[in-house]
Amino acid sequence: MKPYQPVTPAILSAITAIVGAGHILTGSDIPDHYARDEGTPPHLCQIPGVVVYPADAGQVAAIVRLANQERIPVTPRGGGTGLTGGAVARHDGILLDLCRLNRIIHVDRKARYLIAEAAARTCDIQQAARENGLLYAGDPCSNDDCVIGGNIATNAGGNMAVKYGVTSDQVYQLEVVTAQGKIVSLGGRLKKNSTGYALTRLIAGSEGTLGIVTRATLKLQPLAPIIKNYLAVFSGLNAALTSINTVLADGRVDPISLELLDRKTLLGLEDYLKKSFFRQKTGDVVIIQTEAGDETEVRQKHDRLQTLLAAPGLLDFFETNGEEIWQARRMWGKPNSLKNPVSISEDFVVPVDAIDSFVQTLEQLISEFQFDFRIAGHVGDGNIHLRVQPGPLPLDVWEKTLPLFQRQIYAAVYQLGGRLSGEHGIGLKRKASLAALIDPVELELMQALKQAFDPNRILNPGKIFDLP
Amino acid sequence: MKPYQPVTPAILSAITAIVGAGHILTGSDIPDHYARDEGTPPHLCQIPGVVVYPADAGQVAAIVRLANQERIPVTPRGGGTGLTGGAVARHDGILLDLCRLNRIIHVDRKARYLIAEAAARTCDIQQAARENGLLYAGDPCSNDDCVIGGNIATNAGGNMAVKYGVTSDQVYQLEVVTAQGKIVSLGGRLKKNSTGYALTRLIAGSEGTLGIVTRATLKLQPLAPIIKNYLAVFSGLNAALTSINTVLADGRVDPISLELLDRKTLLGLEDYLKKSFFRQKTGDVVIIQTEAGDETEVRQKHDRLQTLLAAPGLLDFFETNGEEIWQARRMWGKPNSLKNPVSISEDFVVPVDAIDSFVQTLEQLISEFQFDFRIAGHVGDGNIHLRVQPGPLPLDVWEKTLPLFQRQIYAAVYQLGGRLSGEHGIGLKRKASLAALIDPVELELMQALKQAFDPNRILNPGKIFDLP
Repeated sequence: MKPYQPVTPAILSAITAIVGAGHILTGSDIPDHYARDEGTPPHLCQIPGVVVYPADAGQVAAIVRLANQERIPVTPRGGGTGLTGGAVARHDGILLDLCRLNRIIHVDRKARYLIAEAAARTCDIQQAARENGLLYAGDPCSNDDCVIGGNIATNAGGNMAVKYGVTSDQVYQLEVVTAQGKIVSLGGRLKKNSTGYALTRLIAGSEGTLGIVTRATLKLQPLAPIIKNYLAVFSGLNAALTSINTVLADGRVDPISLELLDRKTLLGLEDYLKKSFFRQKTGDVVIIQTEAGDETEVRQKHDRLQTLLAAPGLLDFFETNGEEIWQARRMWGKPNSLKNPVSISEDFVVPVDAIDSFVQTLEQLISEFQFDFRIAGHVGDGNIHLRVQPGPLPLDVWEKTLPLFQRQIYAAVYQLGGRLSGEHGIGLKRKASLAALIDPVELELMQALKQAFDPNRILNPGKIFDLP
Repeated sequence: MKPYQPVTPAILSAITAIVGAGHILTGSDIPDHYARDEGTPPHLCQIPGVVVYPADAGQVAAIVRLANQERIPVTPRGGGTGLTGGAVARHDGILLDLCRLNRIIHVDRKARYLIAEAAARTCDIQQAARENGLLYAGDPCSNDDCVIGGNIATNAGGNMAVKYGVTSDQVYQLEVVTAQGKIVSLGGRLKKNSTGYALTRLIAGSEGTLGIVTRATLKLQPLAPIIKNYLAVFSGLNAALTSINTVLADGRVDPISLELLDRKTLLGLEDYLKKSFFRQKTGDVVIIQTEAGDETEVRQKHDRLQTLLAAPGLLDFFETNGEEIWQARRMWGKPNSLKNPVSISEDFVVPVDAIDSFVQTLEQLISEFQFDFRIAGHVGDGNIHLRVQPGPLPLDVWEKTLPLFQRQIYAAVYQLGGRLSGEHGIGLKRKASLAALIDPVELELMQALKQAFDPNRILNPGKIFDLP
């Protein structure tokens, strides 16, 4: 295969002919932030060869056709809020900033769906649904900044996945530009479909490596008349995690959200936000959100929760202000990271019933290595967001021992049947770890699939895995 | 590529060495039923070259390695209850009857999952779950005979998909034999996973063309304390379909099932089963199943249903005997097909809000062509099971005009955003229709994918689509 080609003046002219002179940036005009997303480690940051702002799917397709013909890498970028470097363009290639494809094209109140372009903000989609008396149930914590195309690319979960599932569960239909620069509509506004392969499910979570999503048709749900938010405060993480499993095993509360915040994190958030979340007793916390049709159902669910949670480890249980607690949850790591700028972050997913085993191993390893940690996340889905930091440990010791810690914690996750990422994806950041952990046969299938969809390897190359 | 090779005596010896002498059938020893499934049109029936009964995944893998090396087609077969000829072996190849892989290996009550081999019967899986106080929510109407591997191959929906989704929504993990004869475990016991491509979602519904499923880890749900079944009787199909949309739009009843039966079908079932389902007024019927935690919730849901259904077209609404109505629903087409042996059957899926438009077009076309029809199905999912029959029309007219009718009804389905199959798959039977209707770019992606997974085209060749 010929090597990747550079973005020459002739290529720039061809791109300009497609998008128009005002919609292309080169050289020193390219702002630094295009070298990274919100989670790119410094050594993986890289300025693209050119930044292009296509206006629509037709322009995206035309650029991809050109890139495929010349063998120039193309990396799509949405909100830039990814946490694994997935939107970083490699090999001096083309960065397609999709920000002009930001329209919500149609909201159908009666049939409960919505059509949006790839760079429509998730919060705007949620708002458009609400204005029509409906719910869009995808709810990543970066919803103010993230866009639906990025949510689809990583198959983001978010805060409502306990009841409503992850982003791919919200997707009816995707408009996709293939590596050959053809525009295809995959899936349908259908609750089931056995008419050939499940390509929408495959594109979701493929991090822009199999096709570029330009438009999505999304499911909307009836909006429950009453939403309630509760805080359950526990004496320790294990008591909190046991309680989550009790609520899920019962099946009758049907919570929307079960979100964990450790004690230190919520105390830090209280301090940062100048707000009180705890009443008297502090501890590790689970935020529980429920929905109900009327006050009778509110009482039923509340009473059921109270019964299920009643165990020696429960310190407190009360209704809380939804807006305030979710503001805190969304920014969970921020106050801590201001005080502890050196840290690593993880996005493990394990079987829900194995989270307490995972946390036991974590606490043991943290103690052995003399590190410190903060934990939060969508624990009702088994998805753990974890920050590990040196604490009082000298930085050189931290740096020297961190790789061994990571190997051991990854091994523990896989031992429990878990995986590296629940919703952030692999991108650049976790590629080496995935290569070390994945079943070689599974990797072969993924590589074959990538090669089949994108034989010239132009779509977001070097993400998730390398090709042989 | 070299042509498919025949099953020679040397190949038979090699297969016998893998499975043992008692586990292989050839020539006139092969029973006729292996030439078809329950929906293979006569001209597509075909006796396989050899029938092999592997004992486990290791033997399946060894046979596939041999077949891949020699280029001999391999078709997996489960319960033989498919409706599209998907389990019919082409090109005198190897039919792998997986009936020996029928064990339920583990039921985990606490973590709510179950591990079963591919040919474990769906009804046995349901029973094993129930015995542990849990629910397996996959429930195709052929559940007495169908097996989980077949449910996965077609991504079967069934009666509980309104609330619990289709088979792929029940799948945590799949053990799959690849076209290269390697055994790989895909997915995990995880509620979400962004660690590479969603291969379990891709294998589900791929009809044995991308890999052979030998084992599945399945989600189990908490079993609701109370299940209720209701019949709503309507003056016509459109009134019934409008009501379904009203219930779904409300979102508060959260039904498990919304199943349609037309008036003539239920009258025929009453006659055949010597049972009464209607009270006084007859009409088109929707079976509604709900679950509840206690009698208060039962009343709430009943009253809500009554309010939502109250419209001019509603003739009757009452609780019904669950066992009896579901027995009738499962066999819905049988009494009619005894009287009307000539018919075609379809498995359309359309947007739920478009079913009434579909039925209007159907009624109009049926009237134009002077045909007759019966309708049933999972209409809460937009999935319509339809039998069209000549009625009093002379057979030669039926045969002459049927192709035009089919083209017109398929076009209407696609016009509404529907697809050919909601849960039965494409197999052999719908391959030509799919080829005529599918977007060529989508077909290219599917073909590329097939070619990537199975370069020698040995896995269930000639199903879903042909390769160029």
